[in-house]
Amino acid sequence: MVEAAPGPLPDYQDFHRIMAAFGEIGGTPAGGVTRLAGSEADGHARDEFVSLLKASGASISVDRVGNIFGLFHLGGSQSDCILCGSHLDSQPRGGRFDGAYGVAAAVIAAKAILLNSQQDQGTKPRRNLAVVNWTNEEGARFQPSLLGSSCYAGRLSPETALSVRDGDGVLLADALKAIGYDGRQSFAPRPVRYVELHIEQGEKLEKAGMRIGAVMGCWATRKIRLRFIGQTAHTGPTPMNQRRDALHAACRAVVALHDIGDGFQGELHVSAGRMEIAPNSPNVVAGHVDVWFEFRAPNNDDCDRAVDQFHASLAKIAKRLHVQHEIVDETLRPSEDLPVDGVHLVESVAESLRLSSMRLRTIAGHDAIAISAFVPSILLFVPSIGGISHSEDELTSQSDLEAGLATLTGVLWRLVTDPAQDAAIVH
Amino acid sequence: MVEAAPGPLPDYQDFHRIMAAFGEIGGTPAGGVTRLAGSEADGHARDEFVSLLKASGASISVDRVGNIFGLFHLGGSQSDCILCGSHLDSQPRGGRFDGAYGVAAAVIAAKAILLNSQQDQGTKPRRNLAVVNWTNEEGARFQPSLLGSSCYAGRLSPETALSVRDGDGVLLADALKAIGYDGRQSFAPRPVRYVELHIEQGEKLEKAGMRIGAVMGCWATRKIRLRFIGQTAHTGPTPMNQRRDALHAACRAVVALHDIGDGFQGELHVSAGRMEIAPNSPNVVAGHVDVWFEFRAPNNDDCDRAVDQFHASLAKIAKRLHVQHEIVDETLRPSEDLPVDGVHLVESVAESLRLSSMRLRTIAGHDAIAISAFVPSILLFVPSIGGISHSEDELTSQSDLEAGLATLTGVLWRLVTDPAQDAAIVH
Repeated sequence: MVEAAPGPLPDYQDFHRIMAAFGEIGGTPAGGVTRLAGSEADGHARDEFVSLLKASGASISVDRVGNIFGLFHLGGSQSDCILCGSHLDSQPRGGRFDGAYGVAAAVIAAKAILLNSQQDQGTKPRRNLAVVNWTNEEGARFQPSLLGSSCYAGRLSPETALSVRDGDGVLLADALKAIGYDGRQSFAPRPVRYVELHIEQGEKLEKAGMRIGAVMGCWATRKIRLRFIGQTAHTGPTPMNQRRDALHAACRAVVALHDIGDGFQGELHVSAGRMEIAPNSPNVVAGHVDVWFEFRAPNNDDCDRAVDQFHASLAKIAKRLHVQHEIVDETLRPSEDLPVDGVHLVESVAESLRLSSMRLRTIAGHDAIAISAFVPSILLFVPSIGGISHSEDELTSQSDLEAGLATLTGVLWRLVTDPAQDAAIVH
Repeated sequence: MVEAAPGPLPDYQDFHRIMAAFGEIGGTPAGGVTRLAGSEADGHARDEFVSLLKASGASISVDRVGNIFGLFHLGGSQSDCILCGSHLDSQPRGGRFDGAYGVAAAVIAAKAILLNSQQDQGTKPRRNLAVVNWTNEEGARFQPSLLGSSCYAGRLSPETALSVRDGDGVLLADALKAIGYDGRQSFAPRPVRYVELHIEQGEKLEKAGMRIGAVMGCWATRKIRLRFIGQTAHTGPTPMNQRRDALHAACRAVVALHDIGDGFQGELHVSAGRMEIAPNSPNVVAGHVDVWFEFRAPNNDDCDRAVDQFHASLAKIAKRLHVQHEIVDETLRPSEDLPVDGVHLVESVAESLRLSSMRLRTIAGHDAIAISAFVPSILLFVPSIGGISHSEDELTSQSDLEAGLATLTGVLWRLVTDPAQDAAIVH
């Protein structure tokens, strides 16, 4: 239990109950969750979220791409609004904290603030508070990731977003309709701040022995979906020197990617996590292979340098194996800074709660980053044990979960009440 | 048109009509076929096959694993039987000649022999003739390949065969039931010879300028399905040195396989055509990857030597990447010789038709090889243009198709009529 500070007190029991309820929706035997965006399980989690919000008196709106907003009228209809949330979708066999933690904590923090504002004669909120669940943060079933928040921030058009298809050809529009979250109401208020609490998904906090991470910004990320184009042939009699093997080329590209990562001067994270192979028959030399490559580096220049090295390797592979390649899709999330006053606020609240904190940059993408140019964002982390994430083994201790919730509640309370925050808020 | 020889004359027009009909069942826009074993298209092709046989007066039986036999009573119920056929299933987007050619040719040859036996007062058949379509030769949807013929030859139990599942978890038993080919009648006669006509799927005949290939035997083939076992993790923040990336390991294994192929002293064909990746999400380091590897060499020793080199490479990869691997399934088709009297018979018939011929060994697997220990087999090839197969671009010229059909008809006619063949036939 975190030491009480002035202001609203989150209901930790209620929080753990909600976390357990979300953990059961799409829950896997090994303790993770499979709750892909737009799936039946995602629909059930959304229903639970909406039901929690309605029970607390929030007014619900669902926009075209399925983002769900619950508005608590604390400061009056003409007041500014603070937005807080995360995402309920997960990776296949993902962890039960990634996203759901931030949503559950936002609900509990909002309820605590609402209760406090109704009881406390001292401080009345000057601003409203809204809780949000973003659609398809993960990008597991539908690409791109950060889809709902990117639409909200105007980085992606709803038409484009709704027309993406999953691996089985299902439209996101149809998936949302099937679970009843093809909304029509844009969220009317333009919030002055967005706040997101998330597990770190890395091990910096754990290694440093710190409880709270104040996120200063993000690494640069480049995602490239490449198609390798060879020619189908019989794996048996076809002479080896006549084969144009797309899977062979794809595998050499993955090896080249990791060789670049191993030899890179500077910090670089690389990965290839997904392939689509056609025809993917044991006895057929593959004709087409798509591979999803990722490059992440602390700054844009390093990221670009790694991608340049990769293209040089690809050219050699193409020449050697007579397999062509083309870019199907490429996205760049540049390295960005979050507003420094938000970092200070997280540090200040953590200190008031006697929780240790440190500044860090996120390597993973987050909705808070996607919308920050539209709504200035604050992002805070709690430790992930062993840095494990996107895995059923993902875990954060109960005391760290509570510390994060307490800090989030404090941050939101300051934002909705403190006149000193007014100066930092740009309309 | 092939020069007429004494004996039955195949109806080439009827043959091309049947080939065109099979080519339309599961036909693809690019001129290939997708007729996976046990699929609806496979069912339609089987229906067409059965209807052709019935119209010619053959008696039909379908065994437990869906092999279809059509018996022509030419020599009387107590007579020996000659079996002839191939397979109607295809690879995804495969060629329209692979398998279907041998089935169509067998039907036409049998009809010609039947007609001849009814009209010709000179030579009466001493043996019966049966035409067969084997289930799942390709091994594309269900593994192993050569499934139906292996069951027939007692190499694989029907129980095991019927309990294999496709990539979606569908049982072969259920797939056969759905198309109405879950039979109950074993084919009663034990044939004294099996004859199969097939396209070469290589380029030896074309390069040598020969019309007919008399197959002496087969290369050794080892198929290994390996599972790489890592740990799922976030592709972003997870420190590179803590990842246990199963897809990275799988790709290094594929590259090692091809490096072994490139440097091998002797003839060696290697391939990896299929992977199953879990969870196969762009943002998740893969936890499990299955890869289907193939090694083919003219003799067993070379094949074993290549596999040994591969295992040494795998051990290095496992150590370097901290990814385990295990063999999920491994099959060896040893190098085998077909009876030499069958090779002589093909050569003799080709010569009588003034068709050039050469001896060769098949690299691809064939039902004729799978059953040869049970029923001595004769396998003959016609050229494949460019050696292309398991591809929509697969093509054999009309004149070569007719030359093969004429040779098959001649071989079968000799087998069912010629007393000189009696000595070679072992009961």
